[in-house]
Amino acid sequence: MTQPKPMHLCGFLIAGPVVHSHAIWRNPAHETHFLSLAHYTHIAQLLERGCFDFLFFADRLAIADRYGDSAETGLRRGDQDATRMDPLPVLGAMAAVTRHIGLGATRSTTYDAPYNIAREFATLDHISGGRAAWNVVTSMNDGEALNFGSVPHMGHDERYDRADEFMEVAFKLWDSWEPDALILDRAAGIYADPAKVHYVNHAGRWFQSRGPLNIPRSPQGRPVIIQAGSSGRGKAFAARWSDVIFALQPNMERMRAFTADVRAALAAAGRPPDASKVLMAVMPFIGRTRAEAEEKRDLHDSLVDPQAGLSTLAAHANADFSGLPMDAKVGEIAASGSQGNLNALRSITPDGSMTIAEAGRVYARGVMCPRLVGTAEDVAEELSAIVTSGAADGFVVSPAFLPDTFEDFVGQVVPLLQARGHLRRSYAGGSLRDHLAPAGGAA
Amino acid sequence: MTQPKPMHLCGFLIAGPVVHSHAIWRNPAHETHFLSLAHYTHIAQLLERGCFDFLFFADRLAIADRYGDSAETGLRRGDQDATRMDPLPVLGAMAAVTRHIGLGATRSTTYDAPYNIAREFATLDHISGGRAAWNVVTSMNDGEALNFGSVPHMGHDERYDRADEFMEVAFKLWDSWEPDALILDRAAGIYADPAKVHYVNHAGRWFQSRGPLNIPRSPQGRPVIIQAGSSGRGKAFAARWSDVIFALQPNMERMRAFTADVRAALAAAGRPPDASKVLMAVMPFIGRTRAEAEEKRDLHDSLVDPQAGLSTLAAHANADFSGLPMDAKVGEIAASGSQGNLNALRSITPDGSMTIAEAGRVYARGVMCPRLVGTAEDVAEELSAIVTSGAADGFVVSPAFLPDTFEDFVGQVVPLLQARGHLRRSYAGGSLRDHLAPAGGAA
Repeated sequence: MTQPKPMHLCGFLIAGPVVHSHAIWRNPAHETHFLSLAHYTHIAQLLERGCFDFLFFADRLAIADRYGDSAETGLRRGDQDATRMDPLPVLGAMAAVTRHIGLGATRSTTYDAPYNIAREFATLDHISGGRAAWNVVTSMNDGEALNFGSVPHMGHDERYDRADEFMEVAFKLWDSWEPDALILDRAAGIYADPAKVHYVNHAGRWFQSRGPLNIPRSPQGRPVIIQAGSSGRGKAFAARWSDVIFALQPNMERMRAFTADVRAALAAAGRPPDASKVLMAVMPFIGRTRAEAEEKRDLHDSLVDPQAGLSTLAAHANADFSGLPMDAKVGEIAASGSQGNLNALRSITPDGSMTIAEAGRVYARGVMCPRLVGTAEDVAEELSAIVTSGAADGFVVSPAFLPDTFEDFVGQVVPLLQARGHLRRSYAGGSLRDHLAPAGGAA
Repeated sequence: MTQPKPMHLCGFLIAGPVVHSHAIWRNPAHETHFLSLAHYTHIAQLLERGCFDFLFFADRLAIADRYGDSAETGLRRGDQDATRMDPLPVLGAMAAVTRHIGLGATRSTTYDAPYNIAREFATLDHISGGRAAWNVVTSMNDGEALNFGSVPHMGHDERYDRADEFMEVAFKLWDSWEPDALILDRAAGIYADPAKVHYVNHAGRWFQSRGPLNIPRSPQGRPVIIQAGSSGRGKAFAARWSDVIFALQPNMERMRAFTADVRAALAAAGRPPDASKVLMAVMPFIGRTRAEAEEKRDLHDSLVDPQAGLSTLAAHANADFSGLPMDAKVGEIAASGSQGNLNALRSITPDGSMTIAEAGRVYARGVMCPRLVGTAEDVAEELSAIVTSGAADGFVVSPAFLPDTFEDFVGQVVPLLQARGHLRRSYAGGSLRDHLAPAGGAA
């Protein structure tokens, strides 16, 4: 009998009213407020009870106003970019109320300096005892550029070139203190060994930084690096730098293909093919019966707004659908040729049979995150099958209700994953890197 | 009988081994570690028990290497810039374990973008329920410039010009959401009122930012603004923007003169002369007897290193003293004319009677922060006299021992200040702005 494969779990969050699901804030049972700390500290403690490897905040640096060239719809209806708090202070708070779970956040390499980012994550890694993770993004939309005075916005590949150099600088800064540079000999008054603290003297195309970092080497040395790039350039970047790769794929076949791509890209980058863990987004609806799970899903779906979904889709696809009649079928519009880029809508309804409103509603349900609807046994079985088949190393669990989805998952699915030997029953190592290490997944 | 004047209290911190006192990390009783979260959360809870208005982290973005043109001495001996963690994640953690005390940190206007800073403090203000404060600095040293690729470093007045525009942008971003813009009508699916969320469309010399902020207006609207500029340009900046002004003055006479200057500058800026609270740094040594207090002071002073002090002084004064013989008197060196800028050493020993080593030791004791040595009654009497005379609105309490100084102060001095009617017995308002309001000081 073969050993069950370890399954790595991440809780997906945004510090705002919408996560993937646009129904989050509209749920009448959502008592805690997404601007209040208690909401977040509760979730962190809950996911730690569920032995998750880590949790993670997506982020973006602008409201969205691509839909109708205006922020009106997104703000009124609550799209994914309506508001997002800065995740770093929230992670600091989470560090204070947890002891094991990893703590990750998005930061952009396009709108900050390596020295600032290196300090933030080195600090989070120290105060959390080695639990920091950084999701590296290059920032895709014009709204972000306009908030930072970068007009016109840098091109896609240029942003990744800058991101590569950003990572080089950040890694040099994290490495500028050798592990044993801190002496702390109180009696003799020796704080550090200057011979083990190094200038980095980086001078490149985008950045100059002398260093060293003014923070001693952190428990993990550097944060766990997360990446979600799905373009060719993005995959090469992830293969070079990442410890964890996030993906959103609609089914097991596509998950398997994506993961195979990642393995090949890692090998091409000269790294072991399993050097980076591939985690797939899933949105579970868990009931005591399948009927109850379906009721939860239907309640959830009744709470999403088509225009909110179209506003988010407009931002993600950099296209505008506001001129389209809501009750027209996508297929008819495409056929009429009256609109340009309809690829985004076609990705929601390949055969064009949905109306614009229906497509917006589907996107608002969860940004195409695949849904697992059933009993805890059903969900555990499906997750187990995906990991066992090698189609993924684990999952980014995306909540449909907060904190309810995580409560259901931790209370009902986690024990089954533990019983199957996929998931630790308690944390073995001290750092997030320990949780992610090949031997660290199973208890 | 006149009403006792309110006294505002701030706890001074740096997220590193040295605060003003360079003995902090060398104290054998300093059991908690300055890289660990428990150290900071304990201090936050302690100062909240003492009804302090707020606590605050100074910060800097580089190690110091002015002394001997090398970081060697500062790193080996532990100067004030040897290491400093990023305060923002630490403040997030403090927010999770306290409910009332204000939470402040330094951020530089020279090495970050207004949109990032505005988001950080809006977030801290939300998750703390209205307790955020920002100490605005323009970053003075070459080492910081070199870490961010700004060579040559901007001039002093140019940095303040940029800071003025930075504040304009940050204030516009914080004001971009009207107080009632967030609707949160779950049933109707109305998240916000787009008519109450505004583009800021800032386009100036230094910054362009379209906005709006992607965070709803925070409880205080914006963080409490702290400033410590002591140059003419710095004072004008503080008079324009600040809610709190920090100063380090050696005695009551100089405190009174400084505060009078501030009042005049506020009036010149068209603000009420008491619009900004002036807080003076003090370092208390508290004993059950004066002899015991003096013993604590002497123990403290025995733990500081002259070279650590000279390294910090070199950074602060942008001058190098490494070539001077440690046992030569400052007066003799000045007389010999063999060195250029000795103003910094003369400010420590005006008559030149100290040796270089003695001057370094004095600077290491507390960066010239005045010391209050005596019983709790002595200390309370002195603080009371300063505030009653109008020489200050309160104090920045700088610890000689951590957490011991704060434990002594909260346990012994705070009850006396409360009995005199200077200090609240419990927090009346919910926000830091409430604590600082004119009527908010006395219980």
